[in-house]
Amino acid sequence: MSDQLLTIEWKNNKLVLLDQTVLPNEIIYKEYDSAESVWEAIRTMVVRGAPAIGVTAAYGLYLGIKDAPESSFEDFRKTLKEKSELLATSRPTAVNLFWALERMENIAETNKGLPVAALKETLLKEAKAIHKEDEEINRKIGENLLSLLEDGMGILTHCNAGSLATTKYGTATAPIYLAKERGWNFKVYSDETRPRLQGSTLTALELQKAGIDVTIITDSMAGVVMSQNKIDAIIVGADRVAANGDVANKVGTLGVSILAKYYNIPFYVAVPTPTIDLKTKSGKDIPIEERDPEEVINLFGKWTALKDSKVYNPAFDITPAENITAIVTEKGIVRAPYRENLLKIFNDFY
Amino acid sequence: MSDQLLTIEWKNNKLVLLDQTVLPNEIIYKEYDSAESVWEAIRTMVVRGAPAIGVTAAYGLYLGIKDAPESSFEDFRKTLKEKSELLATSRPTAVNLFWALERMENIAETNKGLPVAALKETLLKEAKAIHKEDEEINRKIGENLLSLLEDGMGILTHCNAGSLATTKYGTATAPIYLAKERGWNFKVYSDETRPRLQGSTLTALELQKAGIDVTIITDSMAGVVMSQNKIDAIIVGADRVAANGDVANKVGTLGVSILAKYYNIPFYVAVPTPTIDLKTKSGKDIPIEERDPEEVINLFGKWTALKDSKVYNPAFDITPAENITAIVTEKGIVRAPYRENLLKIFNDFY
Repeated sequence: MSDQLLTIEWKNNKLVLLDQTVLPNEIIYKEYDSAESVWEAIRTMVVRGAPAIGVTAAYGLYLGIKDAPESSFEDFRKTLKEKSELLATSRPTAVNLFWALERMENIAETNKGLPVAALKETLLKEAKAIHKEDEEINRKIGENLLSLLEDGMGILTHCNAGSLATTKYGTATAPIYLAKERGWNFKVYSDETRPRLQGSTLTALELQKAGIDVTIITDSMAGVVMSQNKIDAIIVGADRVAANGDVANKVGTLGVSILAKYYNIPFYVAVPTPTIDLKTKSGKDIPIEERDPEEVINLFGKWTALKDSKVYNPAFDITPAENITAIVTEKGIVRAPYRENLLKIFNDFY
Repeated sequence: MSDQLLTIEWKNNKLVLLDQTVLPNEIIYKEYDSAESVWEAIRTMVVRGAPAIGVTAAYGLYLGIKDAPESSFEDFRKTLKEKSELLATSRPTAVNLFWALERMENIAETNKGLPVAALKETLLKEAKAIHKEDEEINRKIGENLLSLLEDGMGILTHCNAGSLATTKYGTATAPIYLAKERGWNFKVYSDETRPRLQGSTLTALELQKAGIDVTIITDSMAGVVMSQNKIDAIIVGADRVAANGDVANKVGTLGVSILAKYYNIPFYVAVPTPTIDLKTKSGKDIPIEERDPEEVINLFGKWTALKDSKVYNPAFDITPAENITAIVTEKGIVRAPYRENLLKIFNDFY
């Protein structure tokens, strides 16, 4: 994977992000040194994918407080809260964002006895730990998924739960990278994933760069490749998993899960446990972000419909637990009944 | 439908075509008064859609002979043949093109006793009849479909089986235009239909121009709108219907049919009877055209993936008869068992 693209890097006390809005045509790395600019980067999807957003927000929060006055913990906490609240408004759906910010705030509370200067160092360390843990988590997710797969299989994925959405390996792509390391050959199909084309611009790009056999199809072709017996397993990521096993992921995932059910193909969701939100009872409680109509009807500056067309552009959809064969985490493989078994995975380990 | 885009119009002894090559960004009508210019219009896809090409060719042939010398039938027939042969070379696939030219030539033969001036009038009448019949077929398909629908329903369609592919009403869109005439209000959802976007550039455009409430979604959002109970019926066109009721239509139709089944939503296929091919036993016997990879990974000159990416790009897919609630023709509504009932519709009327 020597050619693999680096999504997030901490370098010279600045955050470096691969600008994912211009892929695959340009490979541009951008530097950030304020919470506000990081907010903008998350909002405009320079960085995207729930785990990557979490790591980015953690660094963003550190950037927001690194120059704060070091007079008192109370003043420092005020700045920390302000910047955390700002960053929390950058995207509404990815739970990792809120999880990472909360973890950063908690570490500050735990260490409030420290001088503010030392506290700042502690927060940077925590952001780096979140970053490192993400890599480790993905590798474990990949190993767990790999135990469900076999050499030579056809794998369909939707959107990008790849290394570009995380920090290394990705979640849905982790078994694919690990299989490659083992000398296995999967035949991967990547839905292009309209409207923002993460499947072609990101997933196909990163897999191809890593030397993996990947074929791009439009979202509308998922049914065809399944009907032709080309797909043995479907693996997607998730933006949030509810306590009952319902999954919020990139719009189109629901449709793929229904096709998988129709064709009796296993449908796996790859997630790090922080993406599982036990406070969210079911998919009904997950807010779905609706995005700009132009994403659908304007492609590279060209209108594909009248400018004043009505457009519905939900960014995510909810896949009901009943369509999911297994939810695969770094802590193990979870199967139905999800309400009990998701709880178990937390109780066993925390 | 005062604002409806007119695909083809006969006006002041000239043919007026809507230039579909610049839709949706520009609405330009072009006038034609020679067979040569009509040949160019068909070839460059100013007009497209098999039924529309047939009607255009018939008018084009009249334009080719309207100023021919009126000396003898033999001289006239020579010009007629020349112009017909020219027009036949404009596009290779649409069977309606050859069918319309043959019909025009046959009417000349049948009436060769007439003075040439009167024969010219007869040919113009025949072109108008072909035009009128296409409208009439579509209106009947629309009326038959309308008997299955109710005011206020949400309707999903895929690709363009609209007035822009025919002359008026379209096939899948026919009940939508007729409902509008009756003062009914449907809420239409149009899949954008990747890779070529006929759903946004054509279907949404023509419906919006006609004052119909239409919302554009990406193909990947069909599942979401169905899960939200926004869709009461799905109506699509077809490129070919096999004797067992399997339907070849624009890629993505299969997926929509599976979603419809999962959500218990009626799935209707709107077709003129010539599209039903009893010689084709089942969907397995329908060859599926595979098109240029660039359609998928190059949008308006911009690459959405690495240029050398592997792409699978079937233009059509096969929806199995079991997913189809009814096949609706100008001669009536056909339901399962299709093998028997499709045969019946031909036997009853021919």
